[in-house]
Amino acid sequence: MIMAKFKLDEIDHQILDMLIDNTRIPFTDIAKKLLISAGTVHVRVKKMEEAGIIKGSSLTLDYQKLDYSFIAYVGVFLQNTSQTKFVLERINNIPYVTVAHITTGKFNIFCKIRAKDTMHAKEIIFMLDDIEGVYRTETMISLEESLNDKKRLMHTIFNEL
Amino acid sequence: MIMAKFKLDEIDHQILDMLIDNTRIPFTDIAKKLLISAGTVHVRVKKMEEAGIIKGSSLTLDYQKLDYSFIAYVGVFLQNTSQTKFVLERINNIPYVTVAHITTGKFNIFCKIRAKDTMHAKEIIFMLDDIEGVYRTETMISLEESLNDKKRLMHTIFNEL
Amino acid sequence: MIMAKFKLDEIDHQILDMLIDNTRIPFTDIAKKLLISAGTVHVRVKKMEEAGIIKGSSLTLDYQKLDYSFIAYVGVFLQNTSQTKFVLERINNIPYVTVAHITTGKFNIFCKIRAKDTMHAKEIIFMLDDIEGVYRTETMISLEESLNDKKRLMHTIFNEL
Amino acid sequence: MIMAKFKLDEIDHQILDMLIDNTRIPFTDIAKKLLISAGTVHVRVKKMEEAGIIKGSSLTLDYQKLDYSFIAYVGVFLQNTSQTKFVLERINNIPYVTVAHITTGKFNIFCKIRAKDTMHAKEIIFMLDDIEGVYRTETMISLEESLNDKKRLMHTIFNEL
Amino acid sequence: MIMAKFKLDEIDHQILDMLIDNTRIPFTDIAKKLLISAGTVHVRVKKMEEAGIIKGSSLTLDYQKLDYSFIAYVGVFLQNTSQTKFVLERINNIPYVTVAHITTGKFNIFCKIRAKDTMHAKEIIFMLDDIEGVYRTETMISLEESLNDKKRLMHTIFNEL
Amino acid sequence: MIMAKFKLDEIDHQILDMLIDNTRIPFTDIAKKLLISAGTVHVRVKKMEEAGIIKGSSLTLDYQKLDYSFIAYVGVFLQNTSQTKFVLERINNIPYVTVAHITTGKFNIFCKIRAKDTMHAKEIIFMLDDIEGVYRTETMISLEESLNDKKRLMHTIFNEL
Amino acid sequence: MIMAKFKLDEIDHQILDMLIDNTRIPFTDIAKKLLISAGTVHVRVKKMEEAGIIKGSSLTLDYQKLDYSFIAYVGVFLQNTSQTKFVLERINNIPYVTVAHITTGKFNIFCKIRAKDTMHAKEIIFMLDDIEGVYRTETMISLEESLNDKKRLMHTIFNEL
Amino acid sequence: MIMAKFKLDEIDHQILDMLIDNTRIPFTDIAKKLLISAGTVHVRVKKMEEAGIIKGSSLTLDYQKLDYSFIAYVGVFLQNTSQTKFVLERINNIPYVTVAHITTGKFNIFCKIRAKDTMHAKEIIFMLDDIEGVYRTETMISLEESLNDKKRLMHTIFNEL
Repeated sequence: MIMAKFKLDEIDHQILDMLIDNTRIPFTDIAKKLLISAGTVHVRVKKMEEAGIIKGSSLTLDYQKLDYSFIAYVGVFLQNTSQTKFVLERINNIPYVTVAHITTGKFNIFCKIRAKDTMHAKEIIFMLDDIEGVYRTETMISLEESLNDKKRLMHTIFNEL
Repeated sequence: MIMAKFKLDEIDHQILDMLIDNTRIPFTDIAKKLLISAGTVHVRVKKMEEAGIIKGSSLTLDYQKLDYSFIAYVGVFLQNTSQTKFVLERINNIPYVTVAHITTGKFNIFCKIRAKDTMHAKEIIFMLDDIEGVYRTETMISLEESLNDKKRLMHTIFNEL
Repeated sequence: MIMAKFKLDEIDHQILDMLIDNTRIPFTDIAKKLLISAGTVHVRVKKMEEAGIIKGSSLTLDYQKLDYSFIAYVGVFLQNTSQTKFVLERINNIPYVTVAHITTGKFNIFCKIRAKDTMHAKEIIFMLDDIEGVYRTETMISLEESLNDKKRLMHTIFNEL
Repeated sequence: MIMAKFKLDEIDHQILDMLIDNTRIPFTDIAKKLLISAGTVHVRVKKMEEAGIIKGSSLTLDYQKLDYSFIAYVGVFLQNTSQTKFVLERINNIPYVTVAHITTGKFNIFCKIRAKDTMHAKEIIFMLDDIEGVYRTETMISLEESLNDKKRLMHTIFNEL
Repeated sequence: MIMAKFKLDEIDHQILDMLIDNTRIPFTDIAKKLLISAGTVHVRVKKMEEAGIIKGSSLTLDYQKLDYSFIAYVGVFLQNTSQTKFVLERINNIPYVTVAHITTGKFNIFCKIRAKDTMHAKEIIFMLDDIEGVYRTETMISLEESLNDKKRLMHTIFNEL
Repeated sequence: MIMAKFKLDEIDHQILDMLIDNTRIPFTDIAKKLLISAGTVHVRVKKMEEAGIIKGSSLTLDYQKLDYSFIAYVGVFLQNTSQTKFVLERINNIPYVTVAHITTGKFNIFCKIRAKDTMHAKEIIFMLDDIEGVYRTETMISLEESLNDKKRLMHTIFNEL
Repeated sequence: MIMAKFKLDEIDHQILDMLIDNTRIPFTDIAKKLLISAGTVHVRVKKMEEAGIIKGSSLTLDYQKLDYSFIAYVGVFLQNTSQTKFVLERINNIPYVTVAHITTGKFNIFCKIRAKDTMHAKEIIFMLDDIEGVYRTETMISLEESLNDKKRLMHTIFNEL
Repeated sequence: MIMAKFKLDEIDHQILDMLIDNTRIPFTDIAKKLLISAGTVHVRVKKMEEAGIIKGSSLTLDYQKLDYSFIAYVGVFLQNTSQTKFVLERINNIPYVTVAHITTGKFNIFCKIRAKDTMHAKEIIFMLDDIEGVYRTETMISLEESLNDKKRLMHTIFNEL
């Protein structure tokens, strides 16, 4: 619980709130809004990175525009859970799988995939089915991605700290 | 299909590859590596943003360190699908729900939630259950988030273009 | 059992085999191949129509080319089976539903739908969900229509007679 | 998208509407109703065939009268999806299977069969079960084919073009 | 446990074995085979009837020949189990239901029905669905009644006594 | 359709109605009630036996009193349906299985068993599980046999003839 | 985490190991075996009780001998989870329910019940079904309680501390 | 039915009621409250132990305080039920499994486990999955142990005797 030792103050919160909304905001912009120096912003962000609060950042793309509008969840049944690690390594080689969990319930592994269309999804599902140790898969298709937003959670977490 | 008109060249690819790995990389660093001017980087990124390829960016946090290590998928059954829009608006007010889809198969809506622990997860699931129009929910708990990485997909998409 | 009284001979079989393969084949072509008169073909086809063997004919379209490549099966649960007739009448007003059965097992009614894409499918599923008396639907999506051919069955049936 | 280049006009629509209702209607009848020459009808139908809009035609039989009144849907589980193509080829040899899809959800392949009665259905299901690579099947029986009509869809599609 | 007080001897067993195979066998035939008097047979059968071992007898019909060859099991879900007794009384008025159990597992009541054909089965299932308090039914169809024989069990029970 | 040729008259109906209620009723009793000779009764019953309407008769026991009050339905999954015949022969050797069907839906074979108690039921279920070719079983336990009466159906069938 | 402050030493472990095996063991017996005074045992047990390690003790009965050999797990579906607390209070009034959990997955509440026999189990299940707010229950019956032993876990926990 | 011969009187009931609430209550305390001698208490408890009514006693711990707050139910599917005994022996070596039943329904064995947290639960589930003969497991997680109390049942049983 490194968190326990690390106390975020009001300034940190305001910096985080701005970075959460736009990771590419220049430190000088943050500094101006908070009436502090850019150096202070830099030092505080660095400290939060070192404490492991900030791990990195990622681009948000419009997959629809990029013709990757097909999303599906694929539940994977293994022949034996001793193969879990091996199968996850193989899944890791399929870039169309963006998320994978070991889960309770009927599936051993639960994946999220993004594809161009039905045909492409079929190919990706077959890639999963063809991994040695995979016994069967079951697919649930997204008709609409109604919400994909971690920012609300991030604001909530930092406001709670 | 704005994409069809917009042709990314080799330089664009290399800029994107760097931004995907680190959204906060300064344009001057990109420029130096590609032996072009920072202005050119700026213009090209701008163009890609306007074409809707780049939509924004988001921080990547270590939820484990932030004490939000509990992940679950919650399938929501509605009393009637005419309530879908209304229920999604309510779900949108629960920050612990980071993803929500309208799905085929047995669930009407399928959500991903992040919580502190079992107790907290129970509270969030009860929030979902209490939304008017929600008939029942079914929860699948993640024992391990083995993969959560959109970068491989992004590299793949841009290499395909 | 009108069939029992009606005895198809070898000539009838050969006429049927040609019509099954191409409903628009001119009777003169059939006549030439079988070395009989076109009038005979006409009389025999008429007799088979009157006996109820031939009910009509339908065009075969390339739905893929017409941008209707999305096929799904939708299982419908009713609030009460006394509503079956009423709900089927409503389903009958949705042209995207091409087949509907009253079934055993977990569904009350089982439909086949054709749509343009995921978004369009969602709209059609919502039309079904919105019919009064429909309690819930469950959708299974086709990744590939590998076979859709009644001709083999027709040849088999007539060869058995 | 060949469709994009091919523009159907009002005359084409009216020709199609008549052919959809009766594929065997003589071109001279169409011509008379539309006050155009039979040659024009011929040319336009030919063009629609070449554009892939019209792929062929099929007879509509009264299966009830032919003593094939038993309809069932059979879900097929494979031992491994790498066998999909092989199994579909075998299924293709069973004329009683009129439709087969590769599907999402719990089944790998989903078929529609027509049989004479319960006993005959059992034999056909056993044929499917006996295909190498088929692990298990699950059958849902139709109590009534309430709707089987592609004509409404065809009219809708062509009216939309 | 009236049984405990009632001791069947070898003669009783032999009488029962004959009656199990043919309830209409005359007592004089049994007497002849066992070298005892018909009166003795009569007295012993009477005693077994009074002890509640023999409750009655029923005809065995060839349902196939009677055109009642369609058998199905119907699982009934109730709106509330407080309605169980009421619903069972209604079921008791449908002669096509020959067996009904209150069960554990997903169904509240589990029935066996005999019908003439698919159409008739649909009517019977709809009768069940229409009973007030019945929420939903699920049907499993018999493709073949491979075994229906209580005689082996009866012989076993009496040999164990 | 032997039935078609065989016409039951009012007298036959009344004989059947009495035999259905009590297979052991003496022909002289039937004769007296119908004001016909015992010989006539004998001839008519014989004719109905030869026509296959009456196949035999069976004792009705009070299983509760015989300490066989535990009833369960066991669904059997086979490794392969080609083993169906073989497995049914093995099931036929277990006297506690009184009914067995080949079924549609998720089970290959569906059995009814009668046992003394939970412990005994476990042994019988294990006997089924141990049959070569049986892959898995699933059991549903009867909490109460609320109805087990073929007499109502028999009366109905003969009244319809 | 009171535990963190409270350090169990070797003597505590040995005392606990003896109490786990037999809660009624006199402190003088423990003292003799560990070569310490009974007063020391008393003080240490008291301290462990105050620290909340030891909460109490319970008798272990042979339910089989007490004619309560029927065990079942009952999954409860609620009409709405807002009723959870209310329903649990009602369940708390049924002494035959020995364990109840709020669970993930398809059930809202999951109970363990002990009954005398099938008939008694039916009554208890009906009590659960009759609670206001309970929508449906699903029962799984134990054929054998093969393991019911918390002692191994307790020894493990204290050895880990 | 040893029970049948053994008759508990009012004094026995009162002794049991006190022991159920606190197994460690000294016999002298019981004696004082009931105005009988401690020797009498001793004799009667001994008799109930010999009759098998009292089998032993167990400590009740606050698992929450001991950091074992994670409870799950794990359903185990076997490859073949002939392995049941073998698998139960292996399960018996995993101290985190506190209860195991052979069950009807979809699982062969049904277990209750206690773990420290999600990660620990995953390890225990993998231990179960790794037992030879285990084909698959399915886990249901407890969000709250709302009731775990055998005392009410014990009081009820003894009051009934």
